[in-house]
Parts: sequence; C-alpha cells; structure tokens
Amino acid sequence: MSKVLIIGAGGVGRVVAFKCAQNSAVFTEVCLASRTKSKCDVIAADIKVAFGYSMSTAQVDADNVPELVTLINQIKPELVINVALPYQDLTIMDACLETGVHYLDTANYEPQDEAKFEYSWQWAYQDKFKAAGLTAVLGCGFDPGVTSIYTAYAAKHHFDEIEYLDIVDCNGGDHGKAFATNFNPEINIREVTQKGKYWENGDWVETEPHEIRQELNYPNIGERASYVIYHEELESLVKNFPSLKRARFWMTFGDEYLTHLRVIQNIGMASIEPINYEGKEIVPLQFLKAVLPDPGSLGDNYVGETSIGCRIKGKKDGEEKTYYVYNNCKHQDAFDETGAQGVSYTTGVPAMIGAMMVLTKKWTGAGVFNVEEFNPDPFMEQLMTQGLPWHEQHNVDLEVQ
Amino acid sequence: MSKVLIIGAGGVGRVVAFKCAQNSAVFTEVCLASRTKSKCDVIAADIKVAFGYSMSTAQVDADNVPELVTLINQIKPELVINVALPYQDLTIMDACLETGVHYLDTANYEPQDEAKFEYSWQWAYQDKFKAAGLTAVLGCGFDPGVTSIYTAYAAKHHFDEIEYLDIVDCNGGDHGKAFATNFNPEINIREVTQKGKYWENGDWVETEPHEIRQELNYPNIGERASYVIYHEELESLVKNFPSLKRARFWMTFGDEYLTHLRVIQNIGMASIEPINYEGKEIVPLQFLKAVLPDPGSLGDNYVGETSIGCRIKGKKDGEEKTYYVYNNCKHQDAFDETGAQGVSYTTGVPAMIGAMMVLTKKWTGAGVFNVEEFNPDPFMEQLMTQGLPWHEQHNVDLEVQ
Repeated sequence: MSKVLIIGAGGVGRVVAFKCAQNSAVFTEVCLASRTKSKCDVIAADIKVAFGYSMSTAQVDADNVPELVTLINQIKPELVINVALPYQDLTIMDACLETGVHYLDTANYEPQDEAKFEYSWQWAYQDKFKAAGLTAVLGCGFDPGVTSIYTAYAAKHHFDEIEYLDIVDCNGGDHGKAFATNFNPEINIREVTQKGKYWENGDWVETEPHEIRQELNYPNIGERASYVIYHEELESLVKNFPSLKRARFWMTFGDEYLTHLRVIQNIGMASIEPINYEGKEIVPLQFLKAVLPDPGSLGDNYVGETSIGCRIKGKKDGEEKTYYVYNNCKHQDAFDETGAQGVSYTTGVPAMIGAMMVLTKKWTGAGVFNVEEFNPDPFMEQLMTQGLPWHEQHNVDLEVQ
Repeated sequence: MSKVLIIGAGGVGRVVAFKCAQNSAVFTEVCLASRTKSKCDVIAADIKVAFGYSMSTAQVDADNVPELVTLINQIKPELVINVALPYQDLTIMDACLETGVHYLDTANYEPQDEAKFEYSWQWAYQDKFKAAGLTAVLGCGFDPGVTSIYTAYAAKHHFDEIEYLDIVDCNGGDHGKAFATNFNPEINIREVTQKGKYWENGDWVETEPHEIRQELNYPNIGERASYVIYHEELESLVKNFPSLKRARFWMTFGDEYLTHLRVIQNIGMASIEPINYEGKEIVPLQFLKAVLPDPGSLGDNYVGETSIGCRIKGKKDGEEKTYYVYNNCKHQDAFDETGAQGVSYTTGVPAMIGAMMVLTKKWTGAGVFNVEEFNPDPFMEQLMTQGLPWHEQHNVDLEVQ
C-alpha cells in the first residue's frame, strides 16, 4: 500500500524498521538510510531473519539537502520518518518540501552550536508545508509524542478543562555499566545539564539544573528521585491547551548519574564549544560521545523497566478530578523483540504508529503539526496492540507538589 | 662558569629557568627550549624583567633525537636539564650520549602506551653513560628527588639502620577550580589511578587503587585523608637502602578529587588506548588534558601550602628512633617569586640544585644515578637558601600505621 523512507539507523531507527516490517500491510515498502550504510544492512538482515521481510538500504548524509533530494526522488516514498540527529531536522524538512513528501520526526530541531530546545525553527515551516499540501508531524516519539497524545486524549475524554499537567518519566532500568546514556549521549547530556523550566500562570519559570526534586512513586518500580527539567513538548502543549495553569516535566536520575554529569561538566567534557586539538576542531561533547558506550549496545543485560505517563488535574462536570495515564516498558522485552533497549523502543514504536496514522489518512492536513493537534483515538488504539499498552487511574493521589 | 640547556617550558621549566637566573654565578649561560618556542620567550622575557638576566630560547621536538643533537651541538651546554614529558626521557638521554653532555631529569621514563612506572628503561643506560664518562641524574625533583635525599641524609646522620620509611605528600592548597591537576594531567591521572604498591619484607605488596587510607596530620595544615599509592622513588630507595623493612608513599586526596577521578575513569576519558575519531587516532586522556585547565594557569589565586616529607623509623645506637624531615611550601610565595604554583616550584627548585651539584662537581661519577646515591649534605644545604627550607623532628609520633 505505502512506501516510507526511514533516515537514521541507531537504536530508534532499528525499532522503527522492525515495527514497520511487523505492519507490512501498511508499510508495503521500506528503505532504511543512514550515513553508515553498513548499520542499515545489519538491521535489514536481522529483519529478514525475523519476519522474512525485505527492505532496501541506502547511504545518505542527512546534513546535505541535494543528497537527500536525490535519494528521495529515487525511492519515491510517501513519507520520510526522520530518526537521525536533531541537528538534521531542517535539512530533511527542506528535502521533503522539494520532493513533495510528508515528514515525521521524534525530536525538535536543535542547532549544533547552542543547547536550545524550541520549536521556533520548525514552526517557521508552517506556510511552506501548507502551500505544498504536505503534512509535517513533529515530535512523534514517546516524550514528546505519546505524552502529548495522552494529554489530548485526557482533554478530549476525561476533562472539561485540564489545569495541571505533570509529565513523569522514570527509567527504572539498570544497564550494568558505570555510566552510559540511554540515547545519543551528546543530545542527552545537552538536555539534562540545561537549566530547569516549567510553565505557571501564563509564564515560564526558570530553575537551576535539578533544583526541584521530589520522590515520586512509579507503578511496578517504586519510589524514585525525580527532577523538574525542561522538555520540549511543554512548549506546544501550553500553546494548544491554554487552560493549563501549570505544566511540568519530571525525570528520574540516580545520584551516581548526577555525580557523573556534574563531573563531566566540571572537567569541560560537556562543552559544545570546539577546541583546537592538534590542528583539528573538536567539540568535547562529541568526542565524549565517541568514547562512551554506544546506547545501541546497552540492550543486552539491560534489566528493569521504564514508566512514562501524564498526571493531570482539572475539572469535569464542575468537579475537581485527577487522572494518571502511563505505559511501563520492560527493557528485556524490547530487546527480545527488536534487539534494542526500552528507551529506543518507546521512541521508535510511536514513530511507526504516527507514520501509520499519516499513511492510513487518520491524521491529515497541510502544514506543520504537533501530535496533540490530531485525533488521539486511533493512535491510542494502536498503542495497545503495538507493544506500548497504556493504563489509566482516575481520582488517585498524583503526589506531585 | 657553566652553560645549561633546559628542555621544557611548562610550570616546572619556568621555575628551573627562574632559579638558574637567580644563581647566575653558577649558571652563566642558559638556553630554554621547548616544542613551542613562544612559551620559552614569555618565560625569558619575565626573567629579563625580574633579574635583568638574558637567556636564549629555542624550538625543539624532544621526541626527535637528531633535532635534539643539532640543538645541543649548537648550544654546547655542559648539562641538559630535562623537564619535558616523561615519554621523552630516553630520546634526550640518547642525544646527551651522542653529544657528550651530562643529563638530569625529574621523573622516570614512561612509555606512552602503558602506565608503567619503573626505572628499568633508564637503568639500562648505565653502561653507556659509564663508557662515555658522563653523569645522568635521575629523578631530581621533589618526589622523587628531595624525598630520596632526605632519606639518604637521615641514613647518614641519624640512623645506623633505617627500617620503616613513609614518604608523605600533602597538597593543602586550593586553586579554586572545580577540577584541575597540579601538573601535567595526563601524567597525573595515569599515576593516581594505578593500583597501589608498597615494599614490605623484601617484596612488593599490591593494593587496589586508594585501598589504604589514613588521616595524617601535616604541619601547619592539619589532618588530611592520605592514601598509599605507588611512587617511583620507592623502587630505587629499597635497592639502595636494603635495611628497609617497609617503604610506602602516601598522598592526600580530597573526596571531590577522587570522585572526579573515578568518573573520569568510568566514562573512559582516563584511557590511554587511542580511539579513531573522524579518521584521527586520539588518546582520550591526551584529549582530556587539552580540555582541562593548564596547570601553569593555576598559580594565580592558588592559596594554601604543600607539605612533603619523610617519616622514618629505625635504629640508632641500638635504640629505636623516629625522625620526620619535611618542607612546607606556600603556593602564593612560589607564585610571587616565579609566576608558578607550589607543585611546579617544589619540583623545579631541586632540579636547579641538582644541576648546580653537577656543575660545581659536588656530585660526580660516570653512569646513571638516583639522587640518594650522591652525598646529600651539599644539596640539603642549598635547599635551606633556595626557597625550600626543611625542618626536622626527632622521636615524634609518626602516626603512620
């Protein structure tokens, strides 16, 4: 029925490719491309063994628009699923516009030379996608992605007005390494070491990094130290749900993880300012990424599970009401199914479902969209059967203070 | 009277150059050379301003024997003072042999590709220096260097037999940075992260890194957590003082310093195995060195002092006796005098005195020598007036267990 081009062959790309192959009725043809074609070939070979599904692979430099255009014109997909680096969102969007192809990604564009997380660059493509009659779906992983769809679903079915939103993201897993990041270390460290920020009463409130800390309970995991950090979906959610009086994002970090981050900053290895090393300009954080374990290698022996959800307070029929919707994902189950750990899995599955929504015309429209702007129901339905079932609790103690 | 060539223009090179200029009756001519000539020029200009003393400067790659030979033949010094990198000891020794010039260094040779601290490589030059009628003085900084001379002095004047030696090295200074090493971070981290080792009853005893810890009191500083680590002078001291039943080396580390070291190892940045980064072979520890603060930049605002000494127990006239000999050095005093902090100062001053011993024929002989093999008395006398006065205590509690 439909052809897609997946760009990016890290852990998330692996999961997207596996899930597309599992849904071959929708994804009749898939091409997997990346800077390093051999990584695509390994994934394609694993999929061939697992499902007998054949996908093509290609080499492409996602920083290079003409190269992308050439590849897209050759493959002729309906949609490009971008799971490359966030630095490459704009070049891939440009290439989609030039070739007349729909676009979907899982993380907002970031310029490489400053740690700045905002949608402005991608929202600026609104008119271009509208004029071209094309759909661009932004941030369709788990967070951003499922968390925004949870919010839209809650607003649609369980509230007249949502007022307090706390997105809670717990990784209760243990990869057995002294230190490793669960996704691209460069992006992870940039995100986690920035100042905290949340929305309250119509304004952004900034905090020092990890200033707000609370022990929160996560289903099937227990109590974990959780910290308010800034996360990109807050920007679009407060715009799309103006009734929100407060919106925050919490992430769990162990003390050892924070100690490692603090030292990495102290010794200068978190810096994104290049230094001249023996005549070569090298960004310390990018060099550190090359030294740290590849997140794709963490799947084996990764035990425990993730728990990500939305804790919402608001009004329903004039009464105050609370609602908690979440998914738990076991790293080992994710690895057994796709060869990738839970953090890659929870990002890749929603990307596949988002692509399915576009291809099956459940999500339509010309322009640039955050996922909460679409109908959440068919997406929520797919989550149940594609490996990320969700659970809901009504009128429970949300804990968040 | 005599001409010397100093190779190395880091903090230690700066101190050696300053102290030579202060002793211009002995050091009538000095040439300061390094890979980066501009660093030599800055030091030479500072010395010109401070003392009106003119020294020449030169560019040299100390890894390159023919280049060294050309420079030595051009300068025609009596002695080369090597305060470059420990990797370069052998090339400089080779060049001295080829040109017929005496040699002195402050740290033993280390191969660049393994963290191995032993004299074997340099002791292997014994016959060559003997045959050439040249003197090679090994390890003439503070530790190794003054600590070995303290030991020789104690053995000569205060004991019939020295049995227990504990070298104690405390840096009670505060440079105000989150993390920095006091000398070449590459060498420092290699040294500090290795396993512990000490001599007992005729054998080496290995420990885990930082396994043996004790709070020790240092004069004018107070109690500091001190750890048994391996330090190179132990190897020659147990050979030259066979009466030693036990010989250990203690160094103080703050908890934060150790946390930083632990993380640096965990994230792989202490590794000396090169990785291929964008087509270039890069050793993580060498890259980290380029990112960390230059130890030469720590002098300004460095407060507090170092205290390094020998705590010795043995027999004198059939009685048990204890003896503690030490020097304290204030970072600020060192900086005011030479523009370098205390750790550079305590290494550079003894190197100059050792050179003075050779040039004034107080230390003579053909071959390769560790400093405890020479007469300690004229050296101890110079320490008193050259900025590193020592103090002694008899029959006090040495604390070390």
